[in-house]
Amino acid sequence: MKKRVVLALGGNALQKNGEATAEAQKAIAMEVGEIVAKLADKYEIIIAHGNGPQVGNILIHEESAGTEKAPAMPLETAVAMSQGQIGYWLTQAINNAFLKKGRNAKVVTVVSQVVVDKADAAFKNPTKPIGQFYTEKEAKKMALVKGWTVKEDAGRGWRRVVASPKPIDIVEKKAILELVKDGVIVIAAGGGGIPVYRTRVLKRLKGIDAVIDKDFAAEKLAELTKADIFVSVTAVPNVYLNFGTNEQEALGEVSATEMTRLKKYGYFKAGSMLPKVEAAVAFAKKGGTGIITDIENVEAALKGKAGTIVR
Amino acid sequence: MKKRVVLALGGNALQKNGEATAEAQKAIAMEVGEIVAKLADKYEIIIAHGNGPQVGNILIHEESAGTEKAPAMPLETAVAMSQGQIGYWLTQAINNAFLKKGRNAKVVTVVSQVVVDKADAAFKNPTKPIGQFYTEKEAKKMALVKGWTVKEDAGRGWRRVVASPKPIDIVEKKAILELVKDGVIVIAAGGGGIPVYRTRVLKRLKGIDAVIDKDFAAEKLAELTKADIFVSVTAVPNVYLNFGTNEQEALGEVSATEMTRLKKYGYFKAGSMLPKVEAAVAFAKKGGTGIITDIENVEAALKGKAGTIVR
Repeated sequence: MKKRVVLALGGNALQKNGEATAEAQKAIAMEVGEIVAKLADKYEIIIAHGNGPQVGNILIHEESAGTEKAPAMPLETAVAMSQGQIGYWLTQAINNAFLKKGRNAKVVTVVSQVVVDKADAAFKNPTKPIGQFYTEKEAKKMALVKGWTVKEDAGRGWRRVVASPKPIDIVEKKAILELVKDGVIVIAAGGGGIPVYRTRVLKRLKGIDAVIDKDFAAEKLAELTKADIFVSVTAVPNVYLNFGTNEQEALGEVSATEMTRLKKYGYFKAGSMLPKVEAAVAFAKKGGTGIITDIENVEAALKGKAGTIVR
Repeated sequence: MKKRVVLALGGNALQKNGEATAEAQKAIAMEVGEIVAKLADKYEIIIAHGNGPQVGNILIHEESAGTEKAPAMPLETAVAMSQGQIGYWLTQAINNAFLKKGRNAKVVTVVSQVVVDKADAAFKNPTKPIGQFYTEKEAKKMALVKGWTVKEDAGRGWRRVVASPKPIDIVEKKAILELVKDGVIVIAAGGGGIPVYRTRVLKRLKGIDAVIDKDFAAEKLAELTKADIFVSVTAVPNVYLNFGTNEQEALGEVSATEMTRLKKYGYFKAGSMLPKVEAAVAFAKKGGTGIITDIENVEAALKGKAGTIVR
């Protein structure tokens, strides 16, 4: 039996040197494809990915060119659009990486709705800036017209801020699991998933503008698909304590308890390693293995020979 | 055993009265969802859909607001974005229609690449206008810079025109078939599919800017998933001869041979019924049943009691 692995790729990773054309991002997707094609010989692979810069650009285009006749799509639908976009690039890259080995890939992208709780405290204090910059006046007008929360963003202008609630379920989980069992590589929960909530009484699904952390969504995906290993793929081979100082210390195998203690001591930064560490610890506490490493070291890390490994 | 049915929905159908906001299109998707939820009791359902107005608006936003830092996505990637967008709306609508009946739906949208032949004659004579209108000068500049073919569009301005090649394969066919066999309602080949071709020697997949007719793509999907019935869902209950005249005659059950003869006599218009008729005839010739009707009559037509039915 192959072990089941969920890889969480960063959306930034597809835009090396900030190159955001489709061609540049497809070229980087191809590098990912080669690695996935290699891993797929030994593991069942499920891929989740971020969408920060991609959905950012979609929103900029939608918001600045939206008209009454061709209205701008809301954030939740823009996330769905980014799933189609990035999912297509990754699917094609994996197809081509398999062809290079003389084989056909079985790989699909599933458009994924991730359920959040409308009562999540995050909705009371939106913090995640998204979309284009506005002047203070424009921003306050958008706040009135569209009901947005807007904030001044580090001296760069005003932006919309949205909530980053916790994922609690994935609507498409059963179909994803069936695909994986059928030997299909599945790309799912892209960009943390299309944020939806269930209405209070009738439990209907409804989209809501929010940004779900892609590591938390990928960890939820790993849990719901009964994966053995969850890998948060980042830009560095390990998690480090005191990164970039003389005291820098790479973390190898660490227990969930130890990692939680380090977190309490404030070793991990909120906008950076913290969500990855929290996701890896959460998955380890459920009995799985949580890994944080870069794409080049995923294969070695899965063998226990590289990366930060939380058990 | 349930019969397997491919429904091809028009992209225009989601924009009644030209209302193009996400909310308006979701409301119409809900009507489709209710019908699909009802049909799913008796049939295995696969849904293909058009994306004309949706990808049109995406391209307008991408092209008019694209910058060096946030570049416009090419048409093939925009199709992938529209698959995410429309697939999400339909998936959620079907989920909610099932919830209304007290059950959970098994429904997913698969991002789909549809293979065309780069030697297809259509690439020598692009005819399909897409995206925004330009002045003659702007259009000719875009033609030079981006290698577009541009044409004057019926006195309304200049536009890019792209090829509409025939679909020859669907990359994700096996996974789609496995999902259907597992009892999942699948939404696939949206907008006629993301147009890709196989490179001549190495057979790698590569995206290409083109528009694949959604009825032809849906018919191909029906063929590859071994469907029993292909339904092209349109705005009218039947195909008519001499539509809107005193001689108007609704077509009920018609043989493929007869339909082909009517086609030769020029009864069906290129921009309207012709591709639907051709798709239905093609499917009937492969041994299946091809139906053309409106969404309200799909259920009756599947029982042989409404619509134009080609055998």
